[in-house]
Amino acid sequence: MNCEVIAVGTELLLGQIVDTNSSWIGGQLALAGIDSHYQTKVGDNWSRIEEAVRLGLERSDAVIMCGGLGPTQDDITREVIASVVESDLVLDEGIADRIREMFKTRGREMPENNLRQAMVPEGARTMAQQPGTAPGLVVPVETANGDQKVIYAVPGVPYEMKEMVLGTVLPDLQARSGITSVIESRVLRTWGQSESGLAEILSQRISDLEVVGNPTLAFLASGVEGIKVRITAKAATSTEVDRILQEEELFLRELLGDLIFAVNEDNMESTVLTLLAERGLSLGVVETTTAGYLAHRLATARSGTEAFSGGVAARGAGILSYLLKGDPGAWQPDEAAMQLARVARGILVSDVGIATTSIEDPARATESHPFGTAWLAVSMEGFETVEQVSLPGDLERIRQFSVISLLNLLRLHLERSRS
Amino acid sequence: MNCEVIAVGTELLLGQIVDTNSSWIGGQLALAGIDSHYQTKVGDNWSRIEEAVRLGLERSDAVIMCGGLGPTQDDITREVIASVVESDLVLDEGIADRIREMFKTRGREMPENNLRQAMVPEGARTMAQQPGTAPGLVVPVETANGDQKVIYAVPGVPYEMKEMVLGTVLPDLQARSGITSVIESRVLRTWGQSESGLAEILSQRISDLEVVGNPTLAFLASGVEGIKVRITAKAATSTEVDRILQEEELFLRELLGDLIFAVNEDNMESTVLTLLAERGLSLGVVETTTAGYLAHRLATARSGTEAFSGGVAARGAGILSYLLKGDPGAWQPDEAAMQLARVARGILVSDVGIATTSIEDPARATESHPFGTAWLAVSMEGFETVEQVSLPGDLERIRQFSVISLLNLLRLHLERSRS
Repeated sequence: MNCEVIAVGTELLLGQIVDTNSSWIGGQLALAGIDSHYQTKVGDNWSRIEEAVRLGLERSDAVIMCGGLGPTQDDITREVIASVVESDLVLDEGIADRIREMFKTRGREMPENNLRQAMVPEGARTMAQQPGTAPGLVVPVETANGDQKVIYAVPGVPYEMKEMVLGTVLPDLQARSGITSVIESRVLRTWGQSESGLAEILSQRISDLEVVGNPTLAFLASGVEGIKVRITAKAATSTEVDRILQEEELFLRELLGDLIFAVNEDNMESTVLTLLAERGLSLGVVETTTAGYLAHRLATARSGTEAFSGGVAARGAGILSYLLKGDPGAWQPDEAAMQLARVARGILVSDVGIATTSIEDPARATESHPFGTAWLAVSMEGFETVEQVSLPGDLERIRQFSVISLLNLLRLHLERSRS
Repeated sequence: MNCEVIAVGTELLLGQIVDTNSSWIGGQLALAGIDSHYQTKVGDNWSRIEEAVRLGLERSDAVIMCGGLGPTQDDITREVIASVVESDLVLDEGIADRIREMFKTRGREMPENNLRQAMVPEGARTMAQQPGTAPGLVVPVETANGDQKVIYAVPGVPYEMKEMVLGTVLPDLQARSGITSVIESRVLRTWGQSESGLAEILSQRISDLEVVGNPTLAFLASGVEGIKVRITAKAATSTEVDRILQEEELFLRELLGDLIFAVNEDNMESTVLTLLAERGLSLGVVETTTAGYLAHRLATARSGTEAFSGGVAARGAGILSYLLKGDPGAWQPDEAAMQLARVARGILVSDVGIATTSIEDPARATESHPFGTAWLAVSMEGFETVEQVSLPGDLERIRQFSVISLLNLLRLHLERSRS
């Protein structure tokens, strides 16, 4: 079973909107065990949309069309589908009523155009929609040589599209392909090893799993946010899938230890803040080069934010002199970082203080402290440390790396001192 | 002349990476006056890549292939192209030397695989590349019926791709298509009016330009960053295009006044910082809900950052009590915001202080101050103001809106007091 995706809209070709819908659908198809070999973007042009659909039906078992279901004259997806499957468009009274109702409750006159959204190709099924938006379509197609294929049409508005893909398209595809098993993934997020380093640590396990075939492992690089190890498992029931994922996670934790900093949607900041919150500790930060970036990540973490007291972003000489009680140039950089971590505890009234500074100006770089040298400091009761690191890339990457490296330094201390 | 884009990479189909390259190329083609009717994503699979290229050559005059030029076995773009154009791949000694040199200077052994990147289809031209990366290719194709077409291959790494598209692909396409006119755009960034509000202000001008046809205007919504008005002009020379753009910008400025806050790549923070830097003024900020977001935007602005002294992100009760010298709850919220702006001048040793606070916790919302109410304050010599605003959306959008609204408040004062 394979399914391709056609995103419709001239604005996509012109680069005014990035087509994130196809990527998301591609990811969902992969998780559902359905192959997808092509994704196409095409403008609001009848003959080209039609050509794309015909080609899709030729080379794939199913086609998901995304966009072009709106009320304006540009939106011709449903008309093109009707033409391809040689069906008439008929008015669906239920949908028409809902559209009329939507305008009435908003106290607005309904332009006649809007009833185009209630037109459905004969033989097609509609997908549940939010009030007032275009319904999605499930359109069965019998090809010239008798194959049963299907076209799905979903709106281009991401949240409407996602609801229909998850609620109708994927279950329908799985039913058609005879997939009765449940497929789920779990992502272990790691920091501190390259992809090849992880592959080496896990090489035996990867070979073993290749023989068994279930679960499977994949590495996903995610830039400065470390490398993800994705476990994907397949079983008859959701409970059984969970058991396999759980078992594999435990097995991998044995091998990877504290290289793993989070699971699934958690990230470095939510892990650190949760560790702090569990112990009732608060965190204050002082940052120079990364000015505000560290504070913002902590303030917007998905959990544990109650442990974050605040931060000082020190850019000017005035604030730096104030924090260091004198000329910042009089300090060795590692001692300055350590002092800023201590100051963070004081000024931000926090149990734990962390600070980062770095050589951000190539003109200030020296042979011993080249561009990209950063200092990471942690200060808390019974523990103080400062690390000098060499970070790669441009200023933007150096900022990102120093923030995540500093948080990781605190994480390792908190995790190792827990046991 | 039309040109389609084929992005190569299984990771694109799986949704592990969003294909922003095709969008960017689409935007550039449009600006260069070259039509693009299709964009396709295809995995690292020989027969499917080959099918996509053949189809592209059938229906378009040119094909840009993006990705699949790396050193690993997955990367087969150059081999597929050689097969489509029926050419042999030959080792380009110049490129091979550069690759060997790159490994040598890094003190690393070169895996033999890397020489695959030096293989070039006979009859093709290579594009200048950064040291050590895959060269791009310009491959002329004569179709069965004698049409002269062309395949371009560029790497998937965005900055390498962009360099080659701007430096080689677009000029080559324009030369082939006989386009001798120059097309350029200028973007006026606005804040403070809806798209329909702008359309109303500019309606007469839009009608007038529709008759003339050059320049053209387009509105591009950019979320919380306001609405862009794009002027596109076409002329025989770059000087003439610049003159048209300049004239139109002046005309629109008459109509839009200080709704325009920046041009092209500039944004709200670089505009504000540049206005401050021009007067030798420094800026300190205190933020609560937006913790660090405002500071980070200012620290990473593309110009004027020397005017930014730093910021305090106040999350915990301790730091807020310290800044407000007592119980924060004892203050009216507008007075608290004003006080924080004054404190920003003092603690951050700055000429100008700005501050923002807001109702971020639905549990703390009241009828008079619902969720999304924010206070924006500015304090500088001879001028103090505090504004209460109602911001739409979820917490993330409220944060973004309060930061840009606060910066806009300062911008308007600086611009209006300039004259």
